[in-house]
Amino acid sequence: MSRKIGVIGMGNVGSTAAHYIVANGFADDLVLIDINEKKVEADALDFQDAMPNLPYHTNIVVNDYSALKDADVIISALGNIKLQDNANDDRFAELPFTRVQVRDVAAKIKAAGFNGIIVAITNPVDVITSIYQEVTELPKNHVIGTGTLLDSARMKRSVAEELNIDPRSVVGYNLGEHGNSQFTAWSTVRVLGHHITELAKDRGLDLEAIDKESKLGGHKVFHGKKYTNYGVATAAVLLANTVLNDALTELPVSNYREEYGTYLSYPAIVGRDGVVEQIQLDLTQEELDKLQISADYIKTKYAESK
Amino acid sequence: MSRKIGVIGMGNVGSTAAHYIVANGFADDLVLIDINEKKVEADALDFQDAMPNLPYHTNIVVNDYSALKDADVIISALGNIKLQDNANDDRFAELPFTRVQVRDVAAKIKAAGFNGIIVAITNPVDVITSIYQEVTELPKNHVIGTGTLLDSARMKRSVAEELNIDPRSVVGYNLGEHGNSQFTAWSTVRVLGHHITELAKDRGLDLEAIDKESKLGGHKVFHGKKYTNYGVATAAVLLANTVLNDALTELPVSNYREEYGTYLSYPAIVGRDGVVEQIQLDLTQEELDKLQISADYIKTKYAESK
Amino acid sequence: MSRKIGVIGMGNVGSTAAHYIVANGFADDLVLIDINEKKVEADALDFQDAMPNLPYHTNIVVNDYSALKDADVIISALGNIKLQDNANDDRFAELPFTRVQVRDVAAKIKAAGFNGIIVAITNPVDVITSIYQEVTELPKNHVIGTGTLLDSARMKRSVAEELNIDPRSVVGYNLGEHGNSQFTAWSTVRVLGHHITELAKDRGLDLEAIDKESKLGGHKVFHGKKYTNYGVATAAVLLANTVLNDALTELPVSNYREEYGTYLSYPAIVGRDGVVEQIQLDLTQEELDKLQISADYIKTKYAESK
Amino acid sequence: MSRKIGVIGMGNVGSTAAHYIVANGFADDLVLIDINEKKVEADALDFQDAMPNLPYHTNIVVNDYSALKDADVIISALGNIKLQDNANDDRFAELPFTRVQVRDVAAKIKAAGFNGIIVAITNPVDVITSIYQEVTELPKNHVIGTGTLLDSARMKRSVAEELNIDPRSVVGYNLGEHGNSQFTAWSTVRVLGHHITELAKDRGLDLEAIDKESKLGGHKVFHGKKYTNYGVATAAVLLANTVLNDALTELPVSNYREEYGTYLSYPAIVGRDGVVEQIQLDLTQEELDKLQISADYIKTKYAESK
Repeated sequence: MSRKIGVIGMGNVGSTAAHYIVANGFADDLVLIDINEKKVEADALDFQDAMPNLPYHTNIVVNDYSALKDADVIISALGNIKLQDNANDDRFAELPFTRVQVRDVAAKIKAAGFNGIIVAITNPVDVITSIYQEVTELPKNHVIGTGTLLDSARMKRSVAEELNIDPRSVVGYNLGEHGNSQFTAWSTVRVLGHHITELAKDRGLDLEAIDKESKLGGHKVFHGKKYTNYGVATAAVLLANTVLNDALTELPVSNYREEYGTYLSYPAIVGRDGVVEQIQLDLTQEELDKLQISADYIKTKYAESK
Repeated sequence: MSRKIGVIGMGNVGSTAAHYIVANGFADDLVLIDINEKKVEADALDFQDAMPNLPYHTNIVVNDYSALKDADVIISALGNIKLQDNANDDRFAELPFTRVQVRDVAAKIKAAGFNGIIVAITNPVDVITSIYQEVTELPKNHVIGTGTLLDSARMKRSVAEELNIDPRSVVGYNLGEHGNSQFTAWSTVRVLGHHITELAKDRGLDLEAIDKESKLGGHKVFHGKKYTNYGVATAAVLLANTVLNDALTELPVSNYREEYGTYLSYPAIVGRDGVVEQIQLDLTQEELDKLQISADYIKTKYAESK
Repeated sequence: MSRKIGVIGMGNVGSTAAHYIVANGFADDLVLIDINEKKVEADALDFQDAMPNLPYHTNIVVNDYSALKDADVIISALGNIKLQDNANDDRFAELPFTRVQVRDVAAKIKAAGFNGIIVAITNPVDVITSIYQEVTELPKNHVIGTGTLLDSARMKRSVAEELNIDPRSVVGYNLGEHGNSQFTAWSTVRVLGHHITELAKDRGLDLEAIDKESKLGGHKVFHGKKYTNYGVATAAVLLANTVLNDALTELPVSNYREEYGTYLSYPAIVGRDGVVEQIQLDLTQEELDKLQISADYIKTKYAESK
Repeated sequence: MSRKIGVIGMGNVGSTAAHYIVANGFADDLVLIDINEKKVEADALDFQDAMPNLPYHTNIVVNDYSALKDADVIISALGNIKLQDNANDDRFAELPFTRVQVRDVAAKIKAAGFNGIIVAITNPVDVITSIYQEVTELPKNHVIGTGTLLDSARMKRSVAEELNIDPRSVVGYNLGEHGNSQFTAWSTVRVLGHHITELAKDRGLDLEAIDKESKLGGHKVFHGKKYTNYGVATAAVLLANTVLNDALTELPVSNYREEYGTYLSYPAIVGRDGVVEQIQLDLTQEELDKLQISADYIKTKYAESK
């Protein structure tokens, strides 16, 4: 019955995600929504101008919430990145804007009768994912944030660069808030057949420096162009495809963890039914402490957002 | 010996083309160049942050002209789109800026020893393609502009919309300048098994209205977001792939036509040796006249650019 | 709600089509059916062994007709190619076998409550398509045969080879039976901006020789390996994707033409609702005569098959 | 300068690999070689019949060793699978046939001046890889066997099935001979955030049963259709792409390990320069013993093959 994806918010991230979907034929039907009607119509037309030179066809619907009723996945990419730029790289700077927008959007999604999976990119993503779940009243495991799927990719990129290998050959996770309180759970990182903590000595790896570089990398992207789009849009589309394919892949995404009482990033098995299983890592005490701090931070911010 | 593509100019178009290449694994090596060092480095890092979540690997080199020596294709996407916005949608508004930039870039490409095919998107594309050829002294058939490959796609989109069919099922060309003097050569357009001119009566098609809509579409994209990127980047990458694959595909691109003494868009067979054969259409007298006007306009502008 | 494709018959063609789908992530759910249980299970397992090294995930179900209830498309690829080999390349040699098998399969599809589009490859395809429609009682436009989509590709390959261009740059159709009574409708073939009939003189093209070569090509493939699979499987999957995407593409496929009272290949617009519009070509009298002969042949054979 | 791949041996595996390459546009030039001229020409023509309905173009050359001179990668897929069928599933049953064929092929590759990377699938693959290296005199790290890249995939499939997750979410390796003396190095297998050995108790996993199932799976494929092709062709093309992209990915492939004095499967970092780094796993004593036995077996067989 065909794949149907909605993208809400056609800024740098949403339009890049939509383009990635169109260029690869990942969806049959694509619903694009933005309050800036001229922008979303411009993007839709631009995609249609691309289509005669593309191998796949995608049906595009613009600004029609009712078309989301039978969508499989909605990617929420709305935001106001300028707020972050003025605020020292704190993703929470966007919250006063996004919490209002997202409540409105979530209510409309609910009114449309949407019954699929929400993939949230909108920042601060852990709080926003909570808001989506709260307003739509969808099951908690049907609302997922891209979370540290991007940050884990950045960590892999930094580690891989240091060792001159493919980042895909690095296994491991960044956990917690998709924001400043997150951290690399080095106990989970394996590369070249070893725990990276073992390898670090032999190879002269400075994990703290890598951690820093990985975070600075994100800032470098952000300050270099005043937004980031390719990394996060790729993460979001991978997550959406994982849902569509029912791939049951382990991904570090923002999902509701009962023991922390909040959405935060922690690896989970993702499929057509959203988060279908939660992993239980063997973290070190230090990592557990960091995760608790990160969880508390998200919870406080969520409470403040109400 | 692997596919190597250079992209010069990492604005909206160049970065979209680079992303399309990275996301689909079209190149093994990708050289990204921009005078805004922070922007090109940000994009490169952003692509690398995407890679762990992508199926393909692409080696990215930043701002190194010498790396272009053995590139197969260089896509020139530099420009200053703001100039167009202030100038009533005339692509020539960019020329005072781009002619200077392109002469500089072309000299550097030449100095690097580049011996492949140049695919120019930079506007005004027909004049810019001439400048690239003149400065690099590459054979005329090794320098190609995307030209009306995009405008033909727009025409197909408009026709297809009217008839409720796939734009890929519309055959035909827009010819001449990739700019205001271009036109749809309706005598070349076939759809649903008929010349569109025959079909127009039966189906109540108003070709002039379609023509207008097709052009307005482009403007709508431009005014809706102050730039266009997906359609033109797709056209450029298709052209680059056609060269890499040596596909010998017929495409309406800006190529040097001896009889008009200028680069202008006219269908040609494109392969690894660039334009390997030029088509000779049976145009109507009216179309021939329009093409002559368009050619003269490009030639005048090129002369003025020196 | 995800893409679901069924493939019935896991011989050379069906398994190649299934592999093409799995390797490209064209479907989320794939139902494979064959009376040779060991073969279909072997293929399913082999696909699963490929999956960890592929970028996409596909859920595979084996030999469960009830899983076809909500399939979007069923590709019928069953057959007994050895019968053709013993019979002088006449696709009707398979009919005594396939008509029995197909009636059985069609009844099971109907019983499963399938309500999508059938794409038939099974030979003799025009008669088999009729049988599928007759038994399933699906609307005539929901049952389609790949027909001369393959033969048109062969014609394009032959023409392109002669002119040293991309076969994708040849426009035109083979019509009628996917079998010996088919023909290239040269009046529909355009290449290098011209009707091929005009071009033939200048370029020294011998259309009859090309026609022959095109047909011999098919036989060469068949005799070289005792089956053909890549060309026809590609055609079938393109057709299935066209349906899934609702692309509304013009394709020469076997569809029921009222004026001939039979399924035969003739270009049609294909989308999610199957054949949504039938083209009306301006054929020459000679071509019309050939088409009538081909239609009569199919009708006679269909009548005999009952 | 474009991607060029050679495939030698157009049986079930070689032709499937070639099809996967053609259907995805992984190569620009593809050289197909087989002693059965009718078969290789039939496949080439069949691919060309597919191309008008595919998005990519691939130039195909048939049975011309000289065209391999500038190939990036040669995939050796020749074999005589019937010999295995008559011999109780022992891949060494093919050796009397393949060792002769491969010496001949390797000499021709050398004579052609080939200077790229050889990816061997031909069985018994560890011995055959040695023979290729010996005869071509290419550096040892430029000759690689697909080895247990397939067997590791099978192990992942079996583990994943048991846990109802994506096989891509299982990390770990099968080591040693791509044959009966291979084994899963369970100490390397991680899933759901744990060493599988820890998880096995909680989840009631019977690793020995999984190991057996994994091997039986291979046999089930083989006996179900008298050959295996999709899994192994996918592994080979992934390996070839890893070389072309210079991806530097960690893959369990057959590579020459000095300490064992033979080619055998052990994870290595693969890029454009072949095996660019060898991993050093922390195996258990039991695993080390198994690996030694496997290595000794391969060495004996190689010695016998001379």
